[in-house]
Amino acid sequence: MTHQASPASSADRLALLRQELKRRNLNGFVVPRADQHQGEYVPPSAQRLGWLTGFTGSAGAAVVLAGKAAVFVDGRYTLQVRNEVDTALFAPLHLIDHPPHHWLGEELAKGDRLGFDPWLHTQDQVRTLTMACERVGAVLVPCPDNPLDSVWADRPEPPASPVTAHPEGFAGRSAADKRQDIAAQMKADRQDAAVLSAPESVAWLLNIRAADVAFTPLPLCFAILHADSSVDLFMEAGRVAASIRAAWGEQVRVEEPARFEALLRLLGRGGKRVRLDSASTPFQVWETLRAAGAQVEAGADPCALPRACKNSVEMAGTRAAHHRDGVAMVRFLAWLEGATRDGTVDEMAAADALEAFRRRGAHFQGLSFPTISGAGANGAIVHYHSTPKTNRPLGPGELYLVDSGAQYLDGTTDVTRTVLIGDEPPAEARRRFTLVLKGHIALARAVFPAGTTGSQLDALARQPLWSAGLDYDHGTGHGVGSFLSVHEGPQRISKVGNTVALKPGMILSNEPGYYKTGAYGIRIENLVLVTPLAPPAGAERDLLGFETLTLVPIDRALVAAEMLDAAERDWLNAYHARVRGEIMPLLSEPAERDWLERATAAL
Amino acid sequence: MTHQASPASSADRLALLRQELKRRNLNGFVVPRADQHQGEYVPPSAQRLGWLTGFTGSAGAAVVLAGKAAVFVDGRYTLQVRNEVDTALFAPLHLIDHPPHHWLGEELAKGDRLGFDPWLHTQDQVRTLTMACERVGAVLVPCPDNPLDSVWADRPEPPASPVTAHPEGFAGRSAADKRQDIAAQMKADRQDAAVLSAPESVAWLLNIRAADVAFTPLPLCFAILHADSSVDLFMEAGRVAASIRAAWGEQVRVEEPARFEALLRLLGRGGKRVRLDSASTPFQVWETLRAAGAQVEAGADPCALPRACKNSVEMAGTRAAHHRDGVAMVRFLAWLEGATRDGTVDEMAAADALEAFRRRGAHFQGLSFPTISGAGANGAIVHYHSTPKTNRPLGPGELYLVDSGAQYLDGTTDVTRTVLIGDEPPAEARRRFTLVLKGHIALARAVFPAGTTGSQLDALARQPLWSAGLDYDHGTGHGVGSFLSVHEGPQRISKVGNTVALKPGMILSNEPGYYKTGAYGIRIENLVLVTPLAPPAGAERDLLGFETLTLVPIDRALVAAEMLDAAERDWLNAYHARVRGEIMPLLSEPAERDWLERATAAL
Repeated sequence: MTHQASPASSADRLALLRQELKRRNLNGFVVPRADQHQGEYVPPSAQRLGWLTGFTGSAGAAVVLAGKAAVFVDGRYTLQVRNEVDTALFAPLHLIDHPPHHWLGEELAKGDRLGFDPWLHTQDQVRTLTMACERVGAVLVPCPDNPLDSVWADRPEPPASPVTAHPEGFAGRSAADKRQDIAAQMKADRQDAAVLSAPESVAWLLNIRAADVAFTPLPLCFAILHADSSVDLFMEAGRVAASIRAAWGEQVRVEEPARFEALLRLLGRGGKRVRLDSASTPFQVWETLRAAGAQVEAGADPCALPRACKNSVEMAGTRAAHHRDGVAMVRFLAWLEGATRDGTVDEMAAADALEAFRRRGAHFQGLSFPTISGAGANGAIVHYHSTPKTNRPLGPGELYLVDSGAQYLDGTTDVTRTVLIGDEPPAEARRRFTLVLKGHIALARAVFPAGTTGSQLDALARQPLWSAGLDYDHGTGHGVGSFLSVHEGPQRISKVGNTVALKPGMILSNEPGYYKTGAYGIRIENLVLVTPLAPPAGAERDLLGFETLTLVPIDRALVAAEMLDAAERDWLNAYHARVRGEIMPLLSEPAERDWLERATAAL
Repeated sequence: MTHQASPASSADRLALLRQELKRRNLNGFVVPRADQHQGEYVPPSAQRLGWLTGFTGSAGAAVVLAGKAAVFVDGRYTLQVRNEVDTALFAPLHLIDHPPHHWLGEELAKGDRLGFDPWLHTQDQVRTLTMACERVGAVLVPCPDNPLDSVWADRPEPPASPVTAHPEGFAGRSAADKRQDIAAQMKADRQDAAVLSAPESVAWLLNIRAADVAFTPLPLCFAILHADSSVDLFMEAGRVAASIRAAWGEQVRVEEPARFEALLRLLGRGGKRVRLDSASTPFQVWETLRAAGAQVEAGADPCALPRACKNSVEMAGTRAAHHRDGVAMVRFLAWLEGATRDGTVDEMAAADALEAFRRRGAHFQGLSFPTISGAGANGAIVHYHSTPKTNRPLGPGELYLVDSGAQYLDGTTDVTRTVLIGDEPPAEARRRFTLVLKGHIALARAVFPAGTTGSQLDALARQPLWSAGLDYDHGTGHGVGSFLSVHEGPQRISKVGNTVALKPGMILSNEPGYYKTGAYGIRIENLVLVTPLAPPAGAERDLLGFETLTLVPIDRALVAAEMLDAAERDWLNAYHARVRGEIMPLLSEPAERDWLERATAAL
């Protein structure tokens, strides 16, 4: 069953897979977008959904049955899926309104055998599929030897980029210190081991980085942290330089990835109590441990919270990174003002120019996500990605939305600005920009007691829009890593309930927006750092607030000053004065200094 | 094993229970405060925790082992438990910080058999106990024949108060209409039956009321709603008058409570799909259904949401009830101003006077909960209940907090006012009262899109306190029934995540507060009704807001007007003008009219 190359058409690929399913006596198979780590970016070797269907979005799944197949995507991708996927082969369905387990309930027959790869699904996902099968009398069959991989002839090799040390000068704490700290907590919880299935946790814990996926400096790997603070790291030996191993010492054992299941079984045979994170741990890990006799316990990834609370070195690092990022953004915006006068700058050129400005900054390692560069109506597409087909010029009188960020060795950035091209702001867009700004300011100024979650604060950013009967359909803030993922838990600011209290050192985005389909999009995004506040007289609770990290002017041309109250105007003027004070000394070009002076003038 | 009377001492009762446990080969037993319905009020026949330990709080549990016993209460009751319980017999522990399952993990030995009554625990609670037992190798043993009941010689009879019809003139919809509506939804969800274990759902569905517990007009009973819209109601035949049965027709079958399990087994034998509410359904119901072959499905109580969304008749009813309740409160407050001048009115006398004023209102059926009447430092105790021992006079210069409500045939009320006794407001209390008021107003004025939950709005009521480093440790708002429970789900306004969107017709309380232990307490509580708002120009979302139902002046002497902004002052003045406009025509006593005139004057 080997091929030199995969057939070019989806129809042929689908036929190959169906043949393989038949050979295995399976009536169907589930193909999720996720890889073994449930992460945001998936390496080419794990882009099974893309190989099979052509769909390239960041979330979704396909289900293949003998006579039917469907692809499931969420509201962001309902248009894209029809462009990318042959819908005669794969019926496009809504991932939330008509999810795979509902569709399976309609399509499966009694006695059917539905396969799934137990490395690509969490326990909760498998539970949902199991219930769907049980209802109709079908059987769910784990296929750790993925049948799609068997027919994917030219499947790329899994990534194995060299691992680099993330020096203590950036990380702020030694790996040994982190390991001991978390192991002590596990001991207190009477746990013998924890499986780390989130690569960002392994990277943080061991102070390493790599380049296995785009935009995030991750080594894709599993690890086991033991209560004696030692770690089994499952990674090809050749990826880890001797100097890194020497620095770790004997407490970090590098094991071949193929040994992972054997070591899980060893934990099981010892009757160990093992902590697993429900959100990221593959079903296969739960099952292997259980079958071998381990006591498995669902518990949050033990690295998630300490990773989220940046130490003083990381905080200093992110501030420094934001100075560099602010300089790049200011240069870009100053350039943009001049360059767009003749109408020749388009979305892709603008994104390229911005990347070039960023690349000049010290410690720059690459972008932290694909730049969203949307002019006019394209700005209203929340997850827009400009292509030669959609690319459009930044025209006068239009809004231009640019959401971008970088990976620096000392911090990860993410900033959105919406700017007016030309000099004539459209009245409605300006009013709505000001509503978004009022929400942004309300959140930036929030004062709240220790113990407060991001969910509790979400409405503060929405209230001004709500009053006008408007809203935005995305979260208000996500956590951000330190030279790690730009989307990092466990904290977030969103309508969706979240029980994680905001703690000093956490970095979040503050990004309310407004989108008018077919017309324009607005988003104002700064990163903020959770900070203890000095208690007012008579205070009975420890208070927290946000320090804004991002240092980039907010377009004054889009602010309807009469809609701001005194406190809001003071905030904006103080923010601009700070941007000017901190960025101006880093600029030498007179044109850029002049632009910054104007862009930060008091309202 | 029969006795004429229970021994008077907890020690003897405990010894009796231990003897019985030994006889049954049990090493321990769990005694929760809850009855079979997990409700707020428990009839005397189910006050097992009180009988055994003496503890009378509204939440808690005891665990009895052969050589040790413990009682678990939350932060509200840490003082009370020491007054009521012999702590030499029952170690008092914190229900949240050191819950029974932790303590059992420490105290149980391998091979121990721990008993529990499967009618008194939900499935989730049993899961927690099971895990605690499994960890130490102990066994959890269901005891549907409760061993405590075996030794509780003079246990009162279960309540069996006469059932009365709740006329359509108050309910707004016929029982048949409600049954058909919910059955249609169940059919769409492919469910054959739903077990109703919350008495308020049965009462609502069948338009009946009773008096099985205090303060809430409930019949304590189970029911099964079938997808053909028929109902099995498990209730002693003698409780339901022939006229009620006649009105129901054949679709409502009254069955003896003892038949409940037999009918559950019948559903099971038919392989039916049965919907159960995780929060209220006893473990025994899940197990009986499962063992008999039913497909059980966790799903919200199907009556909960339609019950929460009041129809137009219920809305008119609650408005009318609030007029009567407002008249009673105004008379009381006017009386209080004069009566407290000589310092002879105490907390209990004030509560009695208020009840007397309420009793004069049409449709009055009783209080909706025990009045909280707290002067000075007693006002700081959130769940304070005045007793002859704690009773104190309402002294000049002090704050008096009174939280009270009534059951009327057309609606349930709940209002808290905090008033100054005398003429000299203490400066700090006045400032903090104003912060609480600002939070109350922020929530009352909230404008939000359809789909918003109460959790999202909670912070609006806290922000002014937060800015001063203050907060309150209770929810901001609970749902309220229509001549039903004064605490009714599924909606609420609280820090704790809640996924239920607010919908037109829902009634909630708006009750921020502030409590200074040993000094004073402040709470300002109105009931509000979720209402659709007229969309502003350009609105893209359906907007909702709150109509305030409660019509009682807020004490102007405690308002620091300089701390209110223009919009807040306008709200307060408009509210007082409305109270005056709607209540004045209902008053004839010149002194009361004069008081209302002064109490509602513009600031």
